[in-house]
Amino acid sequence: MRDFTRDHSALALNTATLGHNLDGYGAGWSPERVIEACAARELAGVVFWRREIGGRAVEIGDRVRAAGMEVVGLCRTPFLVGPLAPPTPQAIMDEFHASIDMAAALGTRILTIVTGGVEPGTKGTAESQRILAERVAMAAPYAAERGVNLALEPLHPVYAGNRTCIMTLRDALRVCDMVDAPNVGVAVDVYHTWWDADLAAACADAGKRILGFHLCDWLADTTDVLLDRGMMGDGVADIRAIRAAVEGAGYKGACEVEVFSAANWWLRDPEEVIDTMVERFRTVC
Amino acid sequence: MRDFTRDHSALALNTATLGHNLDGYGAGWSPERVIEACAARELAGVVFWRREIGGRAVEIGDRVRAAGMEVVGLCRTPFLVGPLAPPTPQAIMDEFHASIDMAAALGTRILTIVTGGVEPGTKGTAESQRILAERVAMAAPYAAERGVNLALEPLHPVYAGNRTCIMTLRDALRVCDMVDAPNVGVAVDVYHTWWDADLAAACADAGKRILGFHLCDWLADTTDVLLDRGMMGDGVADIRAIRAAVEGAGYKGACEVEVFSAANWWLRDPEEVIDTMVERFRTVC
Repeated sequence: MRDFTRDHSALALNTATLGHNLDGYGAGWSPERVIEACAARELAGVVFWRREIGGRAVEIGDRVRAAGMEVVGLCRTPFLVGPLAPPTPQAIMDEFHASIDMAAALGTRILTIVTGGVEPGTKGTAESQRILAERVAMAAPYAAERGVNLALEPLHPVYAGNRTCIMTLRDALRVCDMVDAPNVGVAVDVYHTWWDADLAAACADAGKRILGFHLCDWLADTTDVLLDRGMMGDGVADIRAIRAAVEGAGYKGACEVEVFSAANWWLRDPEEVIDTMVERFRTVC
Repeated sequence: MRDFTRDHSALALNTATLGHNLDGYGAGWSPERVIEACAARELAGVVFWRREIGGRAVEIGDRVRAAGMEVVGLCRTPFLVGPLAPPTPQAIMDEFHASIDMAAALGTRILTIVTGGVEPGTKGTAESQRILAERVAMAAPYAAERGVNLALEPLHPVYAGNRTCIMTLRDALRVCDMVDAPNVGVAVDVYHTWWDADLAAACADAGKRILGFHLCDWLADTTDVLLDRGMMGDGVADIRAIRAAVEGAGYKGACEVEVFSAANWWLRDPEEVIDTMVERFRTVC
């Protein structure tokens, strides 16, 4: 397990920590200002959301690299199944391909898949997982040609109705197996997986398929399951144990901080947020 | 698997479906009126909450049996660990014993355990599960002497911060194994477990330790994770598959309907709620 007590060169900022995943939140920093702040602290890199990139993917990617960092990932594909997915299979695949194009233009290796929930007209998650696997398998070669890996991210079971049909790392690995493409793996997020007694064993089975690792925390008295995530150390997740499992599986990549926090961190000065995240990374992760 | 299409003699009402688990909700029916309505529909029985029983446990239990039904269960123990548990270990055990006494006075065989969340000062759920198992083991003989079985109910992982430290049936069985008492088993609730790909296998491993089965549904676009459960058929859970797994394990007991629904079912006439639950039980469960 890596020692980060005096080293945060593996730390990355997911801009959702500054509220950039949704309209109307955060301080509204430009990508340039984010890059500058992260570079000043010698972070590994930045994970962006599609909505802040627009048509400037190449320019923003180049600027990140010129600042000595990398674009660690892009959030995210459209929902690929379920009630919140684009209205037709063709529209889903078109937007899926567009998100792959953006990842390629940014020069990032990782595009995160948030799957979407239970396909209308079905019950349970098995049929949705099957449709999901089909769609990921269809897009995987297109992504591979562009140097993009697809990271299936299991989301917390609270989102299983409409936002995800993979609720555990084990679910994600099952879909990976169905897809069976070399550029399709998984992402492990503390918020979504901390409660899962099977997580360490699933990490071991995932091995090199772990493509991303997301830091945050679960607040014991969380007030909103979408926008009230905790900064590392403020909650009840055993973050060190999770990182040990992820790194024990062979993961050596970036640790990205992704804290959705409308009522707390998104209200603060981004400089303070980034400084706090560096300090917490060194002391509690 | 039992055929309920023309038979609801295994159906029970958990009075939470009428809002009786919390102050200020529902139509405020007395236990007597609940018993009358359930008996009129020839239900198997009723599951009560401690707050509606007060000092009348013997009287209410006798009245249920006089009406040709049984008291299927009592909700619930205090939280036994975590931030919402009573303030001291002694206070926890005192209230635990009081809930066992009430179950015995009601003449029910089943007292449900809702465990409570992560013990303050710890991270993750393993240490909380260990403390939980100790406390359940301490109370199990007291319950056994009074003919009461203790049903550990895994709650949805969304409650893992402060309300539960067992998030899956597998977690509940692990705690059962730690307790190792013949009168300690588990309860399976559709709302809490529907998303779990390991559920059927865990049911098979649970076997005769399944002491209760709770019906409801998970609404795809749920708006509140505490008080917005769905009536069976209105959500995305594969209820029949879950019942098949539970009954495949040997369960032959009551199917109790437990729908927390502040903005929908709790606003309706309880007669309509009970009629709907009978109809849904026959058609979608």
